[in-house]
Amino acid sequence: MKLKGKIYIVGAGPGDSDLLTIKAHKAILQADVILYDALISEEIKELFPEKAEKIFVGKRAGDGLDITERQNRIHLLMKKKALQGLVVTRVKSGDPMVFSRGAEEAVFLKGNNIPFEIVPGISAFNAVSAEFGIPLTDRHGSNSLHIFSGRDVSGKLVNIKQLSDAIENNGTAVIYMGIRVIEEITQKLQALKGGIIYTSVVSKSGHKDATIVEGNLVDVTEYVKNNPVKMPALIIMRMHSLTGEPRENYNRYIDKSEYAMIATETR
Amino acid sequence: MKLKGKIYIVGAGPGDSDLLTIKAHKAILQADVILYDALISEEIKELFPEKAEKIFVGKRAGDGLDITERQNRIHLLMKKKALQGLVVTRVKSGDPMVFSRGAEEAVFLKGNNIPFEIVPGISAFNAVSAEFGIPLTDRHGSNSLHIFSGRDVSGKLVNIKQLSDAIENNGTAVIYMGIRVIEEITQKLQALKGGIIYTSVVSKSGHKDATIVEGNLVDVTEYVKNNPVKMPALIIMRMHSLTGEPRENYNRYIDKSEYAMIATETR
Repeated sequence: MKLKGKIYIVGAGPGDSDLLTIKAHKAILQADVILYDALISEEIKELFPEKAEKIFVGKRAGDGLDITERQNRIHLLMKKKALQGLVVTRVKSGDPMVFSRGAEEAVFLKGNNIPFEIVPGISAFNAVSAEFGIPLTDRHGSNSLHIFSGRDVSGKLVNIKQLSDAIENNGTAVIYMGIRVIEEITQKLQALKGGIIYTSVVSKSGHKDATIVEGNLVDVTEYVKNNPVKMPALIIMRMHSLTGEPRENYNRYIDKSEYAMIATETR
Repeated sequence: MKLKGKIYIVGAGPGDSDLLTIKAHKAILQADVILYDALISEEIKELFPEKAEKIFVGKRAGDGLDITERQNRIHLLMKKKALQGLVVTRVKSGDPMVFSRGAEEAVFLKGNNIPFEIVPGISAFNAVSAEFGIPLTDRHGSNSLHIFSGRDVSGKLVNIKQLSDAIENNGTAVIYMGIRVIEEITQKLQALKGGIIYTSVVSKSGHKDATIVEGNLVDVTEYVKNNPVKMPALIIMRMHSLTGEPRENYNRYIDKSEYAMIATETR
């Protein structure tokens, strides 16, 4: 007798359905109920089985809910459906354990003795790195990788000292949700430290209208200020160009001219 | 007329073939030539098409090659096969752009005008996080994620100041290739800073004989010293337990008792 269902907390990756894992795809196909977020692409949604109940649980403008209320509603919905014996596939963009509240859902389910499984997904930074050939580590240039959020949940700016240390010590820094605060970040980083910070801003990775802006942090910030990029966007920074290439060869070592709008191309 | 082939630099993820992306799977199935590393699992190798030439290009004990020589051989092999008009799928474990020299291969191919595409993969840290429910970020506890290597290419120990800063500022730190230096890291971290560092050591994630050791850094280090773990293994550290759980509830919030050997279970 099937008393309780099962929840799959699934990372759907950056949007391209070919970047789903085989396991994520299976979890989607066997769902009785799908709970999905605002960032899930049309391409992924087309894979949702016809028989499944599809429930949008993302942010909806004007719903008056704060992030904790919305999250609690998702928890209760998962519980309700699981107690009906249904297979619930919770579809999140990227990886469920990176800036995605998958861990909160896991803790809730565990606390309520509801069987669940977490299926990892391709994070935005991995997808961006592959699409535009931006290394996240390399043997000669970058020994560590640091993933930040432009602001934390309380609205506090990313820790500039920590960001600066990461970059200065040969790390690659990736900033999620950083575009709105890029001017503030740039100002504070310049105050701490001069020198060239090689920067890429990638917008809408994996979509037809993906763009990349590359160059010195200061130039890129100026460019982005004057030419707003579409969301979602990631910022990637480091002090060393790939495998010691001089700055003038840094831009676009993978040819993506159909995407590229290079901030520094005329310099 | 087909003069040049194409290279797919593919991340195969942690070993479970269900954690391949659909795109990686396709790239494997259409290969004329497969170049694969030592860490590629039997499960993934079984997917290699019969007609493909399969070439092991990983480290072989006693071959007398250093890392640069071996890497150069791979580059020349890719070039040779591509010039024969073949589709070459270069299969790497994890993600090709994270501690995997995928970027070096991309630079070489770009420099030689050989068409290529990078296919991202599930990194070990994402897989470990999903399998054992270890959050990489969470809204209340951890605002950033930091990926280190226990030693760099020149043999230098991970930057302890940077590691310490990452953890102290609510970050989650992941250390690849850290088991051999865990005692040194622990000693130096203790000198910098007291307090509890919540630590998980996960060995052979995704395999039947996966294990996890969790507890305070000092206890885990002691345990691992007396009970050697199998490679590959990852270390994950942070100062805050998930969503404020007290330390005694920290261990195994996902039930994986068939895997777990908990260092602190009797405390």
